[in-house]
Order: sequence, then C-alpha cells, then structure tokens
Amino acid sequence: MPLLPSWIDSANRADTPFPLNNLPCGVFSDTDPTPRCGVAIGDMILDVAALEQAGILALAGGPYFTAPRWNGFMAAGSEAWAALRARLQSLLREGAAERDNIRPHLVPQVRTRMHMPFEVAEFTDFYAGRHHAFNVGTMFRGPENALPANWLHMPVGYNGRASSVVVSGTPVRRPWGQIKAPDEAAPRFAPSARFDFELELGAVVGLPSQSGHPVSVAEADGMIFGYVLLNDWSARDIQAWEYQPLGPFQSKATATTISPWIVTRAALAPWRVATPDRSVPLLPYLHEPGPLLYDIELEVALTPRGGSEKVVCRTNSREMYYAAAQQLAHHASSGCPMRCGDLLGSGTISGPGPDSRGCLLELSWGGTQPVQIGEGRVRRFLEDHDTVTLRGYLHADDHMIGFGDCTGTVLPALDDPYARPAPPP
Amino acid sequence: MPLLPSWIDSANRADTPFPLNNLPCGVFSDTDPTPRCGVAIGDMILDVAALEQAGILALAGGPYFTAPRWNGFMAAGSEAWAALRARLQSLLREGAAERDNIRPHLVPQVRTRMHMPFEVAEFTDFYAGRHHAFNVGTMFRGPENALPANWLHMPVGYNGRASSVVVSGTPVRRPWGQIKAPDEAAPRFAPSARFDFELELGAVVGLPSQSGHPVSVAEADGMIFGYVLLNDWSARDIQAWEYQPLGPFQSKATATTISPWIVTRAALAPWRVATPDRSVPLLPYLHEPGPLLYDIELEVALTPRGGSEKVVCRTNSREMYYAAAQQLAHHASSGCPMRCGDLLGSGTISGPGPDSRGCLLELSWGGTQPVQIGEGRVRRFLEDHDTVTLRGYLHADDHMIGFGDCTGTVLPALDDPYARPAPPP
Repeated sequence: MPLLPSWIDSANRADTPFPLNNLPCGVFSDTDPTPRCGVAIGDMILDVAALEQAGILALAGGPYFTAPRWNGFMAAGSEAWAALRARLQSLLREGAAERDNIRPHLVPQVRTRMHMPFEVAEFTDFYAGRHHAFNVGTMFRGPENALPANWLHMPVGYNGRASSVVVSGTPVRRPWGQIKAPDEAAPRFAPSARFDFELELGAVVGLPSQSGHPVSVAEADGMIFGYVLLNDWSARDIQAWEYQPLGPFQSKATATTISPWIVTRAALAPWRVATPDRSVPLLPYLHEPGPLLYDIELEVALTPRGGSEKVVCRTNSREMYYAAAQQLAHHASSGCPMRCGDLLGSGTISGPGPDSRGCLLELSWGGTQPVQIGEGRVRRFLEDHDTVTLRGYLHADDHMIGFGDCTGTVLPALDDPYARPAPPP
Repeated sequence: MPLLPSWIDSANRADTPFPLNNLPCGVFSDTDPTPRCGVAIGDMILDVAALEQAGILALAGGPYFTAPRWNGFMAAGSEAWAALRARLQSLLREGAAERDNIRPHLVPQVRTRMHMPFEVAEFTDFYAGRHHAFNVGTMFRGPENALPANWLHMPVGYNGRASSVVVSGTPVRRPWGQIKAPDEAAPRFAPSARFDFELELGAVVGLPSQSGHPVSVAEADGMIFGYVLLNDWSARDIQAWEYQPLGPFQSKATATTISPWIVTRAALAPWRVATPDRSVPLLPYLHEPGPLLYDIELEVALTPRGGSEKVVCRTNSREMYYAAAQQLAHHASSGCPMRCGDLLGSGTISGPGPDSRGCLLELSWGGTQPVQIGEGRVRRFLEDHDTVTLRGYLHADDHMIGFGDCTGTVLPALDDPYARPAPPP
C-alpha cells in the first residue's frame, strides 16, 4: 500500500505518523474548551464533530459525534467504520473538490489538548507476551518453571480497573500500598519504591457480544474497532505481596495510560502478520483464521527531570503469543458479554534481547542490574519526575503510521494520603 | 428500634421483609413495561418515579428518578439519602394525611417484574470470609498453609466483570471453558462439570472518590449507599486450571446475580456489629472506627427441577473478617478512583460449622462428600435446572427486614456454543 497523497501537505511528509492512510480517532479541545471527536491528519486535527454538524459528514445511522467520545460510532459497526474512512479519504485526498469547505474544520495539533478518546467500559489486562512471561517467571520460579502450566494453552488475563485509565499526558502519582519485603516480619503501608511502566498494546472493542454466547476468533477480530498504546503502571512491591492467590489488584490500580489516538483496524490492515509458531497446539476455539498480529515497532523512552530522553526498550508487537482477537474470544468463552468500549491490554510486550524488554522489572532484572539512561544516570525502577513515553510505528516503503506519544510523568507520593483540608469554618 | 407502623397493613405484618423500617430501592415494571424506580413497602411497591413526577416527592437537587436506575440518586449523597427516607416514612406512616395521594402510586409486587436496581460501574470481588478462605485453602494446600500469607493483613480481592451482573430471576447458562483435571495430559474445551454458587453480600458504592486520593475506613463507610445479596456463580473446574498466576477470570465471568432490592445503610444501621477479633493487628489505614458489620442471617436454598426446596446453608454476615468499608478503603489505597455504582462482593460468607458453608465446593468438600438435598437426592455441584436462592434477614423483636430472594436457575450448556443461525437468504 503506497502513501495516499492529501491536499494537506504535512500529511504527505515521510516523518508524519498521520498520513491519509492512518486517520486515527481522538477527542480534542483547543481555544474552544469543549472536547470533541477529531481525526489526525498530518499536523492537523479534522474536527469530525463540526463536520457532521455542518452536514458535510452525513453517515447512515448518525449523528455519531454529538458526544465527546467515539463509543457511539464504535458501536455502529463495520459498515459505518468503512463509510467514515472512505468519506474522509475522499474529502482529504489530493485534488479533492471540497477542500475549501473542509479547511475551516482543521485545527493545528500544537494548539490542542487531547482527552480520553473513548469511554472505557471495562479494562482487562492479558499476559500474552511469551518473553515477558518467561522472564518474570524465571525471576520468581527459576527458568525450568518459568511459564505457568496453562500459559501455552490460553491467553491468561485478569480484569483490571477501568476508572483509572487515563489519556496520555496525565501525571501519575506514585501510590502508597501494603508492602512486605521477604525479610520483613510484617507489612508496612508506604509509598511504592518499585514503581514501573509496562509497554502494551490495547485493543478497543467496538461491537458487543451477547450474554451466554461465546464468539469465534474471526468474530472477535471483527468486533475490534482499533488499537491504542497502553502503559500499565505497576507497583512491583505492592504486587509481590498482594498477588497471591487472586492476582494483581492495587498494584495495577493507580493508573493505566493510553495513547490519545485509536488507530483503526482498517489502517493497520496492511501490516498484518502471523502469530508465532506454537509450542503446543491450541484448542480449536483459539485457532487463527489467518494473520492476526501487526508489525508495530514499539519503543519506550525514559526522561528524567532536567535530563535527556533515553530509549530503554525497542520491541515489536509481533512478539505477542496471542493476538487481541484470541484474547477477546477467550474472554467471551464463558458466555461473558463483551461491551462496546472494552479495553484489552496485551500484557508487556518484550522481545528476545535484553534491550527489548518492556518494563523495568525485566530491564533491571528485578532491580539487580541498573539500567543506564545516559548522562551517568541509572534506574532500577522509576524515580519521581521521570517521564515515560511509549511510541509505536508501522513502516511502509514511502510512509509510516503511528499512535502519537503515550506519555506520563511520575509525581512524588503524597506525604500523607489521608490528610484532608480543614473544613471551612 | 421498634416497628414503624404504616397505613399499608401488609407492611406491619411480622413476616414481611419490607416494613416501613426498610424501604429498599429497586427498579420494576408491571402492566406498564417501562422500568422505573420504586421502593418496597409490605407487599406493594411505591412508584417513586411517578411520585416525583407528580410533585409529591420534591427532593433538593432532583429530579433523581427520570432514569430506571438508582445511580443518579446514589450519587446525590447522604443528605439526599436521609431526605428521601424521612419523606417516605412521613408519607407512609400510620395516620399520614397524604394516603389518598399516595395510593395511586402503589403497585402490588405480585404483578411486577424486577430489573437491575442500578447500573454497575465496576464489580470487585473480595475474599473476606475467614472460614471460606481457610476451608478452600485447606483443600488446596492443607490446613497448616490454608490462609495465604497476606490474608490476615489485607482484604484480598480481585476485579470482576460488571457486564455479567444480572438481577435475581435471570436464568444462568452453564458455561463452557478450558478444563484440565490433574490426571489429564492437556486441557479440553467443555461445559463446566463443577458449576457452583457463592453466597455473598454486595456493597453498593454511592459516592465516588478522587483519583490519587485514598479514603479512610470511616470515609469509605460514608460512601456506601446500601447492600444487596450476591451470588457469584463459579465454575470450579475452569477456575482450578486458569487461576494461577493472575487470579479467577472466565470461571467467574458467566454471571453474578444480585437481589432485586438494595437495602440502604440507614435501614441496616440498628443491626451494626463489630468485626471479629483480630489474630494480628491491622495496619492503621484499615482500622475500624466503630462497628462495621451487620447481623444479617443468611441462607441458601437449592431446588431441583420438580423437587422441593432444601436449605443447604445457614450463616451470618458477621462472619466477615473485613467489612465492606475496609474493602473499599483498601480498594482506594493505591489512589484508584472509586465510582458511583461500584459493586463490592464480600466473597463467600461461610460460618464455622459444616451446615454454614456458603458454596458447594465447601459443602461437598471439593466434591468428595455428597450433600443431601432431600427426597433421596444429592449434589456435589449444581445440576441443570437447579434453582439457587439466597435470602438475608435482620430480626428485631417485633419485625424484620430483608433483601427479597436472590435467585437463579441453571440452564443446560449450549450443545455448540459457536453455532450460529444461518444468515437470511
């Protein structure tokens, strides 16, 4: 697929993640503080809400963009998704007749603030990266018992917390929690000293499924509207003490940051690749009907306050052992109804090499090996005022597409999280 | 607290769970199929939505009952909660002048169908019953290692699935899932053969908390609007294979049934009791500011198709080691924002004796000891067409209050869960 040329020059540059091939979905505000739905194109945002209101965008079954979230449109289904993409590509393509009608609805990205692109119905986090599962398992149980017994048979996952999913740019406060080191007699309530990021890809469910009715992998793939980058902030010390026997809970509940843009499944389609070879065959309900992964180059950059950015991890979403469609099919296998707005995190996507590990727990091997971040600085876990930025790109010969930065800065823990301002006299 | 007499005779009977002291909150429909908010009183339901629309109920900050769910009112806070209770008790008390204006808005319960009383924002399930944790731990790890190391220090919990929470009366389809018995070489995808109920109490959060800001136990208690009975249907064979290392997932995702009525914290107040003695002291953020539990007598009845009901468990919510306010304080301890409509399950509430165990896993001791259910029948786990009914009562000298039945019938598993009707020609 070659670059689709646009009459917006910045969308034709080789270094923009937002050519006409992409058209990712976000929610923005600018001098008008009202958040509204928009689509990125080059260094601009096209205000699709205004376009719809002006009658330039009149999709069957609409209006879809009266609320500042994409959920209504996500629920509309694949015909509406294709119709919007076709209409926007027609309006924005090189030589389009409508450019004078469109221009008033373009806003420079530099002047905008991004908001949550969709309302998260429920958040589920998986554990679908084999290298991550192996590395973490090795640290805790040794290499011979690294992968849990069920891991090669099912996409292991757990329900997360939707209320703490935030958009890129939102500061993240270092949490307090129950912590007990192996050599301590009893737990303490203290700020996390092992706060970490996790590099993940998030699948955004558009179409719901019916209670009591599982869905096939092919059906699940068709339910997915698009993908976001996802940083599943993790307090490793809280996690180690709490996670047995019912799984991670408060260690993952402080915040989960997503990219401002949902890149649609249609935009990603040219980069489809197969899942890895299987060590053991999957049960039929998890079989792949075709390639389900995407060739997304991923990186994590760490920037200390007053310092320079250092890329600490480069990996690829091809490393996932289970694709999002398989996670979703497994999620619905009990008859659990899936909803528009469900967000499915992949789990940390690590590659095979030491520089491709997607979290500090792995990069510093449980805190034992300091990670160089340049200028003489090292990290075992995140320090206050560190900024973590995830990036994801898909490269073609003459263009690329991307998600926009998924970033967050660690704020110091509160001195006393239970202190309250005195009530007014 | 003595009975508050009402001009509605059925509300003064000793055997009604719905005297004027109770006034639980539900959503109902009748010959008018539009679901709307109502309050149970004796054998009637008072249509509070109609009452509000007629101007008889005019609460500050309202209207609250334009939508068929209690969330809007739950978010209004304790002054509104107290105002509604006071106003309804004034309108319905013996000798009330307004009875002729009220009577048109009363509907006999026998003619109504109940709906979900509130929209579940997120569902979290805890593990706060010590006897349950000890029994299950003994089965899996032996009595000396029964309680996990963290159990006496924190209310262990995990995020559940909100989309599958259903109201009493909704049939529950036996799920399929990945199952591997210890003596099997590889997992199968099959209907669950160890489908179970769990007797729980659910706390309904009314007031939200702020991201990044934990709440004290006292603050958490003030955020709770009321309580429901809760049956956390569990597929034990799916659970055993999937739950390591990240906790229960599809084994608990098929359905969670709640009672049709939310009994408010105000109605439960006379039955407050202290939490059990502590084996080890709790960290300060979990300290009780006063009695936090309720003296709710609980029972589970099992009815096979064509058979008679048999009560298989009698216990009491006093058995909880952690109260809902402590669960909620722990839930927010990482800064996780809590929302109006969050539902917190207690975990199975078993008592000390063999007849007080709140699930079949315990009652049949992992399926090894058949449970007599009368008429020569036994159960190890649930069979198709079994009906499970939870009940909860609080007894005073001259009256009681209750939740209404929390019931569900097991439907047989689908023959082929992936079969789809042929598309229309």
